[in-house]
Amino acid sequence: MSKKIKKIICLGGGTGVSVVLSGLKKYPLDLTAIVTMFDSGGSSGKLRKELGILSLGDVRQCLVALSNENNLTDLFHYRFEKGTLKGHNFGNLLIAAAIGATGNLNKAIEKIAKILNIKGKVVPVTLEMADIIAVLKNNKKIKEEEKIINYPYLSRIGVKKLFLEPKVKANPKAISAIKNANLIVIAPGKFYTSIIPIFLIKGISEAVRKSLAKKVFVCNLMTQVGNTDGFTVIDFLTILEKYLGKDVIDYIIFNTGKLSAKQVKEVGKVFPKADFVKYDKSLLKMKNFIGANVTDRQIQRLDPADILVKGANKRTMILHDSKKLAKILLNLCRR
Amino acid sequence: MSKKIKKIICLGGGTGVSVVLSGLKKYPLDLTAIVTMFDSGGSSGKLRKELGILSLGDVRQCLVALSNENNLTDLFHYRFEKGTLKGHNFGNLLIAAAIGATGNLNKAIEKIAKILNIKGKVVPVTLEMADIIAVLKNNKKIKEEEKIINYPYLSRIGVKKLFLEPKVKANPKAISAIKNANLIVIAPGKFYTSIIPIFLIKGISEAVRKSLAKKVFVCNLMTQVGNTDGFTVIDFLTILEKYLGKDVIDYIIFNTGKLSAKQVKEVGKVFPKADFVKYDKSLLKMKNFIGANVTDRQIQRLDPADILVKGANKRTMILHDSKKLAKILLNLCRR
Repeated sequence: MSKKIKKIICLGGGTGVSVVLSGLKKYPLDLTAIVTMFDSGGSSGKLRKELGILSLGDVRQCLVALSNENNLTDLFHYRFEKGTLKGHNFGNLLIAAAIGATGNLNKAIEKIAKILNIKGKVVPVTLEMADIIAVLKNNKKIKEEEKIINYPYLSRIGVKKLFLEPKVKANPKAISAIKNANLIVIAPGKFYTSIIPIFLIKGISEAVRKSLAKKVFVCNLMTQVGNTDGFTVIDFLTILEKYLGKDVIDYIIFNTGKLSAKQVKEVGKVFPKADFVKYDKSLLKMKNFIGANVTDRQIQRLDPADILVKGANKRTMILHDSKKLAKILLNLCRR
Repeated sequence: MSKKIKKIICLGGGTGVSVVLSGLKKYPLDLTAIVTMFDSGGSSGKLRKELGILSLGDVRQCLVALSNENNLTDLFHYRFEKGTLKGHNFGNLLIAAAIGATGNLNKAIEKIAKILNIKGKVVPVTLEMADIIAVLKNNKKIKEEEKIINYPYLSRIGVKKLFLEPKVKANPKAISAIKNANLIVIAPGKFYTSIIPIFLIKGISEAVRKSLAKKVFVCNLMTQVGNTDGFTVIDFLTILEKYLGKDVIDYIIFNTGKLSAKQVKEVGKVFPKADFVKYDKSLLKMKNFIGANVTDRQIQRLDPADILVKGANKRTMILHDSKKLAKILLNLCRR
């Protein structure tokens, strides 16, 4: 049994899943990215509207993270800067072309997986199109990922309810991956627009609850301005449990590391109100809470081309250290 | 000497060079495509105007022809059908992204050559942007490749002079490939807009004349409606010699094959006035004229997506048989 290759799946958005999987990629593991699909802004949003296809941004990032081909993946991040192509990400155009040529997203991903020689699988969590709706505690409704991200008072007013419109079904491939997993990782990421929506899809929460896999929640490092200001580790977990179910998560990985004064200053220039997610010291003594310094010391610089895309400046500048995270996850896998 | 791998270069446009090189690709040869760069219509033309880059359509076709990678080359021909991407060819977008990411066309081609695992080299004949101007015998001037192709009376009025504006210099890589070649092939193709313009570039005709290589002209199979109506093999050669110089061409390959009545009918539906290029029977007895059945029996069906691109329906439906052509060229190489 212990000699069998372990199946690890990771649910989340492009950046978070990429960080988790790129650390695990070096180990002999069976990896699957189960990717959120509700991006409505930027290049992905434009392609979604114009071509009537699902949002590709998160799928694209996961394909690159699992790729073993360097020449083409370099180009994946390139954004056109002029003309009618302005803002389009080359990777998105490749996936869109593959959808057009093959007829659907599943086949397109299979084709690109071969081209990029990827290790593992990339599975869209749903193959149907939907938008996220947030109903706030004052009953205000906000529709679409991009608008929710950019709404400045989401955490101040509070979210009463989140739902998808229309109600969409899970991709059967996602359900079967969840069923057969040894470890399920919920990646860090934009909480209300990448992470929670996954559990709003018919069948996903139930499949996670029923799965015999160990379930790990990797809590965000930083709060997200407007969306999760002031959130603590327990706040994130409580809201996740509201949608996923109580006592489903076996382990919570949270960060105890700090940045240098210089790094704090640099991040503060872009995100004056963002802060590390706080935690109560008592968590450090609890067996299912794993506190560790998991920050990558390198601050992500925003690509100037990204500035062209509305909302891109809301991307986090501090990421998890994928190597440290991989070690913790492998230990949990062996327990 | 005879054991040394032979260097064959082929000058022309995307379709013609591709046909010549895809037949030769299977042999142990050092192949170089030297590609015409004056396309002004369709996806290439749009990218040229919007991004300020050289026309990519012909380079794209040659890269695919020399490629040994199937998954990505499949997608190269895909054309977007909707939205602001409508009409864009995926291969063009890949090259455009590579130019953006690497900074110039030479580096972009090197990068894509690695991605596609190409056999041989693809060299743009010039790295400077220019348009073709045709001055007709009634002194009417027609500017730009697309307009010349679509002008219905070009051959009826007659071309007095063809020139490039501005005058552009040859790519030094093209000059050195010509210099070192064992065999220089002038591919079939759109005569006034793909083939002749190559010899209008400063340095190219002189380099071909000076080269010790054998020089072969592969004459078109069919006349091009509006541009070369009624042209014979000798008409093509005479005009080529006007720009390249007299007695430079060592061998002329021309077609003696015919289509079946059924095939003639099918082609006639799209090109009612196009005809096989005629030849005088006396040519068959001349040593430097090589008459052979070199038509591919398969009629090229126009991709419905191509109809979106203005001028695309002017593409030939009858191509050379690349295997037959390769055998003749190899024989000439050994002489």
